[in-house]
Amino acid sequence: LNVAFHTAWTNGEVWLAALRAAAPEIEFRHWPDVGDPATVDVALVWNPPRELFGGMSRLKLVQVLGAGVDALMRSEVLPAGVPIARLVDPVMSQRMAEYALYGALRFHRQFDRYEAQRQATVWQRHDHLDPPDVSVGVLGAGEIGMTAARLLQSNGYDVACWARSVRDPGPISVFAGREQLPAFLARSRVLVCLLPLTAETRGILGRETFAALPRGAFVINAARGEHVDVPALLEALDAGQLDGAMLDVFAPEPLAAESPLWRHPKVLVTPHVAGISHLATSVEYVVDQLRRFGSGEAVRNIVERERGY
Amino acid sequence: LNVAFHTAWTNGEVWLAALRAAAPEIEFRHWPDVGDPATVDVALVWNPPRELFGGMSRLKLVQVLGAGVDALMRSEVLPAGVPIARLVDPVMSQRMAEYALYGALRFHRQFDRYEAQRQATVWQRHDHLDPPDVSVGVLGAGEIGMTAARLLQSNGYDVACWARSVRDPGPISVFAGREQLPAFLARSRVLVCLLPLTAETRGILGRETFAALPRGAFVINAARGEHVDVPALLEALDAGQLDGAMLDVFAPEPLAAESPLWRHPKVLVTPHVAGISHLATSVEYVVDQLRRFGSGEAVRNIVERERGY
Repeated sequence: LNVAFHTAWTNGEVWLAALRAAAPEIEFRHWPDVGDPATVDVALVWNPPRELFGGMSRLKLVQVLGAGVDALMRSEVLPAGVPIARLVDPVMSQRMAEYALYGALRFHRQFDRYEAQRQATVWQRHDHLDPPDVSVGVLGAGEIGMTAARLLQSNGYDVACWARSVRDPGPISVFAGREQLPAFLARSRVLVCLLPLTAETRGILGRETFAALPRGAFVINAARGEHVDVPALLEALDAGQLDGAMLDVFAPEPLAAESPLWRHPKVLVTPHVAGISHLATSVEYVVDQLRRFGSGEAVRNIVERERGY
Repeated sequence: LNVAFHTAWTNGEVWLAALRAAAPEIEFRHWPDVGDPATVDVALVWNPPRELFGGMSRLKLVQVLGAGVDALMRSEVLPAGVPIARLVDPVMSQRMAEYALYGALRFHRQFDRYEAQRQATVWQRHDHLDPPDVSVGVLGAGEIGMTAARLLQSNGYDVACWARSVRDPGPISVFAGREQLPAFLARSRVLVCLLPLTAETRGILGRETFAALPRGAFVINAARGEHVDVPALLEALDAGQLDGAMLDVFAPEPLAAESPLWRHPKVLVTPHVAGISHLATSVEYVVDQLRRFGSGEAVRNIVERERGY
């Protein structure tokens, strides 16, 4: 099995070494040193450049080194007809969930105010609710969304999810489709976006959504920068419709130094760190995928191109 | 049953109304309007002034409206021989636990750095551990300490407690006594102080303790300001022995505007809000205590004066 490896990350060599150690029987070639591109079976990539797929006439699988495939789906170089598989790393999902938990605690315990008061040397107490009285709405009910919903629920929050379509109702209530979105938003004091980026979800954190939330709500975005309509967010914050936001993702990244988000008193900017990939579990997953592929078994988490994730 | 009520809080009337509504058969008198002090059976107090107990010759119980009785124990006016009962409010314990959880997340997920980077418009990612690799040590294994330990453990942290004496080993390991303190500290990347303030624990967050922690540890104090040796804390932070601190309590309060703690880049000051009392559950507890007392049953959580809590 010939695998062309590429990542835009700076620690590509570390990943490559771990992959080689975990699966000595697979030939990993560090792109662009892949020899004859026509001999490549699988491309293992993150944010591949336009020219990567050139000449890969035998390519049978693209395994992405991340949970989101939006950048690849938008790319003009995406090879037609070749299945694309996402990376589902339980540690990364848990990390995303922790980010959401931190955001919920920061908001409901008024730590956003205390962080600001500390800057201004102000000693002032604020009352707060307890988690059972804090409704959290998680946009997204996939692997990551459900992990976050479960963690928030286990910490006492009143949690619901929103998904594209109806699912098996587990211990967490799921609102489904555009019809149920207003009701879902109306109950969400804290809104956490963990959606895939698709044509349907682009800009979902916009004017209409903010207006449908309870007044004084808090928004957490750990999905994609393109989910947010930034002018609408700033307007909702300044009008008091939103009480705060914690944003991990931006379009483009890094967030420009002149962006008003950096210094807005009600916004916490973090540098795309909500779900940093975990080497060991990611490598384990990828090697399992490649072995499945090599032995003709079904590869997991294949992207449905028409829905975009 | 005649109860003299006093609190230094601004919302004493709200408490009094709730107490009267919950127990119409008990006579609550708002000090100093208690009539003949010799007819008072129980004093229900928080930070009572020197003159409160004057003339209360029939006093049989002091029920404190808080978990900590250190201020009362130090007071010269404490009536000799009268039992003192602490308030144990499960909601307050849970709130303290949430404060500790927020502190642990803030530290291990590097949010302290991101809060600072946001001030400076710096986009820089930092790697982080996952909770199973983050050892948290909780000083105190009473109601509050154990609630915090359980919440931290349920969120995946590697938790141990430290107590004055050996207890039944439950699912959380407990180190006991001065002999086991160094071993406990050596394993605590995050140290959470939830101890009662006594002669033994005063200044426990001092030079010796900080030196025994792993280098780069993080200290959370939600107990009493007198637990901290502030110059030793600042020295340990500036020397890099400690990587940060989150402090909720100070001596005296409010923390003076000129305190270096306010503006220290590695310190988050909060205004004594880790465990704000919850009216409904506190009133329920107090009424239960008073009814037990009235019917001759054992009152719970009586302070042992010689140990100080």
